[in-house]
Amino acid sequence: MTSTQRSGEREYVLAHRDELHADLDAWLRIPGISAQPDRHADVRRSAEWFAEAARRTGFPTVELLDDGPWLPAVYAEWRSDDPDAPVVLVYGHHDVQPVDPLELWHTDPFDPTVDGDVLRARGASDDKGQLLFHLLGVRAHLAATGRTSPKVTLRFIIEGEEESGSPHFEELLASHADKLACDVCVVTDTGMIAPDVPSAVTGMRGLVAATVTLHGPDLDLHSGQFGGAVPNPATEIGRLVAALHDDEGRVQVPGFYDDVVELTDTERALFAKVPGGDEAFLRVAQSRATHGEAGFSTLERLGARPTAEVNGIGGGYQGDGHKTIVPSDAFAKVSFRLVADQDPARVAAGFERFVAEHTADGIEARVAWEGAGVRPCLVPLDTPAYGALTDAISAAFDGAEVLPTREGGSGPEAALQQALGAPLVFLGVGLPDDQIHAPNEKVSLPMLHKGAEAAALLWSGLAATGRDALRG
Amino acid sequence: MTSTQRSGEREYVLAHRDELHADLDAWLRIPGISAQPDRHADVRRSAEWFAEAARRTGFPTVELLDDGPWLPAVYAEWRSDDPDAPVVLVYGHHDVQPVDPLELWHTDPFDPTVDGDVLRARGASDDKGQLLFHLLGVRAHLAATGRTSPKVTLRFIIEGEEESGSPHFEELLASHADKLACDVCVVTDTGMIAPDVPSAVTGMRGLVAATVTLHGPDLDLHSGQFGGAVPNPATEIGRLVAALHDDEGRVQVPGFYDDVVELTDTERALFAKVPGGDEAFLRVAQSRATHGEAGFSTLERLGARPTAEVNGIGGGYQGDGHKTIVPSDAFAKVSFRLVADQDPARVAAGFERFVAEHTADGIEARVAWEGAGVRPCLVPLDTPAYGALTDAISAAFDGAEVLPTREGGSGPEAALQQALGAPLVFLGVGLPDDQIHAPNEKVSLPMLHKGAEAAALLWSGLAATGRDALRG
Repeated sequence: MTSTQRSGEREYVLAHRDELHADLDAWLRIPGISAQPDRHADVRRSAEWFAEAARRTGFPTVELLDDGPWLPAVYAEWRSDDPDAPVVLVYGHHDVQPVDPLELWHTDPFDPTVDGDVLRARGASDDKGQLLFHLLGVRAHLAATGRTSPKVTLRFIIEGEEESGSPHFEELLASHADKLACDVCVVTDTGMIAPDVPSAVTGMRGLVAATVTLHGPDLDLHSGQFGGAVPNPATEIGRLVAALHDDEGRVQVPGFYDDVVELTDTERALFAKVPGGDEAFLRVAQSRATHGEAGFSTLERLGARPTAEVNGIGGGYQGDGHKTIVPSDAFAKVSFRLVADQDPARVAAGFERFVAEHTADGIEARVAWEGAGVRPCLVPLDTPAYGALTDAISAAFDGAEVLPTREGGSGPEAALQQALGAPLVFLGVGLPDDQIHAPNEKVSLPMLHKGAEAAALLWSGLAATGRDALRG
Repeated sequence: MTSTQRSGEREYVLAHRDELHADLDAWLRIPGISAQPDRHADVRRSAEWFAEAARRTGFPTVELLDDGPWLPAVYAEWRSDDPDAPVVLVYGHHDVQPVDPLELWHTDPFDPTVDGDVLRARGASDDKGQLLFHLLGVRAHLAATGRTSPKVTLRFIIEGEEESGSPHFEELLASHADKLACDVCVVTDTGMIAPDVPSAVTGMRGLVAATVTLHGPDLDLHSGQFGGAVPNPATEIGRLVAALHDDEGRVQVPGFYDDVVELTDTERALFAKVPGGDEAFLRVAQSRATHGEAGFSTLERLGARPTAEVNGIGGGYQGDGHKTIVPSDAFAKVSFRLVADQDPARVAAGFERFVAEHTADGIEARVAWEGAGVRPCLVPLDTPAYGALTDAISAAFDGAEVLPTREGGSGPEAALQQALGAPLVFLGVGLPDDQIHAPNEKVSLPMLHKGAEAAALLWSGLAATGRDALRG
């Protein structure tokens, strides 16, 4: 990659950034919340908007994929004129998270507002902003290389159900397997460590989640007449939740760590290079302390270690004041983040055993799972596409070293990897304080510009690597 | 007490039971729920109804006490023509519990329905039925003894805020101390073991209750991006609740058992005489197992041992499905039932220490108390009034032995005892399956008839005991 080329991509991106901003403003106004059925018409509008934007960018083939039980997805293809060029599949999603609690937003989540380098709206970072940098990136790639088709064949698959757990994604991938065949998949739904610390995700955590309900007496009982002599589901749910971790923060589900790929010393050394540390993390988390599995750093806990988290707990009287009852029922919503090579089904079986072992006499426990879960995924650092990726990112960040990280969140990446049989890399420019899934989501516009530049460079880099090397 | 007298009281009660039933039907239609401000007009109507019924019974002095911040109470007095007769104060309450969840009622809670020996309505057992047996009891006492005034001077204080924790009762007692002076107080708001096992309460548990709120991160966090690295209030509230009891069911609040008057061997032998046992208890509780402090029977756990009970727990996502967050807040509503000589203030201080000791780094805990709490009370078995009480009850139950019990619930009895400086006894005929405070509250009509007979006999018995003996 010559320095002339690099300048070309960046110049184009910066010269055309207003078009990216205008596109963002338009697309972010569509409240495509996949988790809310009354927003499904908006999810369709969102897909149609992106399809139109892809056409406008120059993609010769653009299709709405709405021929299955899934919410509309978008497929776009731009073939390289080189028949031996690698085929690259870009994955992202156009649906967004719900916005409640709405009262905590400082601005309307669907009326994007720009404040300096920051644009605020639901979906700005997750994931619309990141998809739009790709459209600008393709144009920058063509302009800088003087071509009319990209150096690699580009295929985009933009899902509309990611924020609902991608319930039909495997089915969608299977239905359209012919369109999606590729030599490498570029996932664009992640972030970097900091604006001045470029990084690339090398792992995503899996996820499996359940609601445990404990049933005690068949009716709420007077705590004076019965309290202290019958099992109390609200106390027992507390005891169950407390038993989930030992005092070292290790998850106590039987067999939980059996399949965990432990960090190597090399990986731990790379993790340790990441600047910022706990103070910056706590500022973003708005938390007063870190917490977690003993013997691991915050970054390791977030990316490389599996967790058990209580997302909700409830039972008995919820109102103001007091009602002196022994409640009949209580529940906990528990989710497990998994790392390679944990299997959601095996963790689920272990948790059911754990619940059975911790259910007091006289309590009936029921465990209801949210689907089959999501597998974790891991990118080996010697993957050739990972080399091309870090070169492109480094160039967009003026030669800075690109650190490998692992994302704590979960997505359909493992399903992609399995369905495609191709290596995965992650090109994403979200920032830790983007408040995705929370009120006041934002995106950094300069990060989107760097994303566009890196994407433009990546297509050249992957072409130079070649199909055979990419497939390994 | 001669057998002629006994017959006279019972004959009168049974001959006039339809009047009791008609009164019950009328009074129970008034939804005097003291906990609900929009029912406070009904609480007043309920007080007015009882005042009128007392006048109709023949009480020469009847007053509505509404000259303070309390909801209307009723005072009634019927002086004995014997100037040396003991003065007896009867305590009860005319307000009722809320009725939610309404959908679990099989009949309208304020449209009393009679089914054989059972009458169903909110307040049937707690406490309107029991107050009405007293009105019939006074008439039976007069009829059977051929008198125009009772053998003891009777004073009734009928509170209107008991189901809201009697927030102004001490103030009411202080304001009307002159009216309420007595040699013995008869509390009528309790129950017996079974229809064929007469008993008398000799202790009430005290109560102190708090809501503990744990605050973690200042916003709900994405459990993938932050989970496993910050303290989770929903997990921590579980750990706090779990720490409340050890594996033997003993409460772990520092100093909790320091002031507990332990059961004597004699008391434990009497407790052991109570028939029914766990099987009957579980049927009423609709629970699949007993549970509680190791080393104590169910009856001992309920009456003679203090408890910590979780009345409600909550935090994080409460809806269907899942939201993968680390919640910002979680809470537990905890109440403690106390036994003599525990002090609510000392237990409260111990619990605050307990919470502080169990609050994880990065979590802010807040403990909000529901008032100052209620003291426990205990009737020594050698109290002379207790002898007169058990004689009267035994007679009403054809000579059966009357077993001493302790009530698990809490009331303003300790405040009464303290304010009056007089001994307390408990005459109540509720049954364990009356479902007070729950949907489908009921009362056994034959138990009310026995209550009326016992009350009629008790006034003679207390007169025979005499003032000096009563005051001890």
